[in-house]
Amino acid sequence: MSPSSSSSRKEIRDLCVKSLDEKMVGTTEKNIENGNGFYQYFFTNYPDLRVYFKGAEKYTGEDVKKSERFDKQGQRILLACHLLANVFDNEEVFKAYVRETINRHRIYKMDPALWMAFFTVFTGYLNSSGSLTDEQRAAWMALGKEFNEESQLHLKNSNLPYVH
Amino acid sequence: MSPSSSSSRKEIRDLCVKSLDEKMVGTTEKNIENGNGFYQYFFTNYPDLRVYFKGAEKYTGEDVKKSERFDKQGQRILLACHLLANVFDNEEVFKAYVRETINRHRIYKMDPALWMAFFTVFTGYLNSSGSLTDEQRAAWMALGKEFNEESQLHLKNSNLPYVH
Repeated sequence: MSPSSSSSRKEIRDLCVKSLDEKMVGTTEKNIENGNGFYQYFFTNYPDLRVYFKGAEKYTGEDVKKSERFDKQGQRILLACHLLANVFDNEEVFKAYVRETINRHRIYKMDPALWMAFFTVFTGYLNSSGSLTDEQRAAWMALGKEFNEESQLHLKNSNLPYVH
Repeated sequence: MSPSSSSSRKEIRDLCVKSLDEKMVGTTEKNIENGNGFYQYFFTNYPDLRVYFKGAEKYTGEDVKKSERFDKQGQRILLACHLLANVFDNEEVFKAYVRETINRHRIYKMDPALWMAFFTVFTGYLNSSGSLTDEQRAAWMALGKEFNEESQLHLKNSNLPYVH
């Protein structure tokens, strides 16, 4: 059974929050690398998606590692994941944060299928750079499923392209 | 004793989250009004601060009430308060969200003293439009004190004006 059918929101929340223990946000060198490392993994394993990062379309993982832009961007995306995990058991707040995230990305004209795909990438990063249990991965995918559902609904309600 | 010395982060978190029960974010008319209402209160009681809202410098509370811009802005600020409350017991995530909030406001060149003042305004709104217990108010001010400390530190580290 998947966590979405067998686990409570609180259990999913706790599993996701726990999985980020070694990927804390912050201002130390380690904290900065926790976020930058996501983009190193992303650019190395999903080079086709670099197109969304204007000016960095040809960056290698090594370029990302040396980039202050991706230090900052890394903190932003890692913080977003911490927020999503922490508030998952407060359903309306979770969904409001999803809609806010979609609103902020409107200008990038992203393929709407990428919202679900993100969670494969993110769990791949967590697994590649530390340990992610099967249970934690399933929890993130359950969270991602709800993230995606609210995303597509909000895109539709905003008269933007969405996945049916 | 203030909550910051006598209460745990978890207790402060729970008090703040609870105080927002009747001010949920969302897409219903009531949810939208919960956010818009903050700006009605703000514009009515702190007219001098309207200067930060380009194009709305002379808005009355009634103007705000009819404004789609402040429906959206209201959701954004109310969501931010829900997020701050919900993650207060995860200190590094809380502080990272404070820094992110400061970064996003950089373009508005705000008086740095306003970061602490916000919590007087926000608790005033909660009290004016519902019930806020003394304990809940003290919890929000304890949260605000930490918000402000991280804000001023981050402003200083960003070479921006800050409150000493």
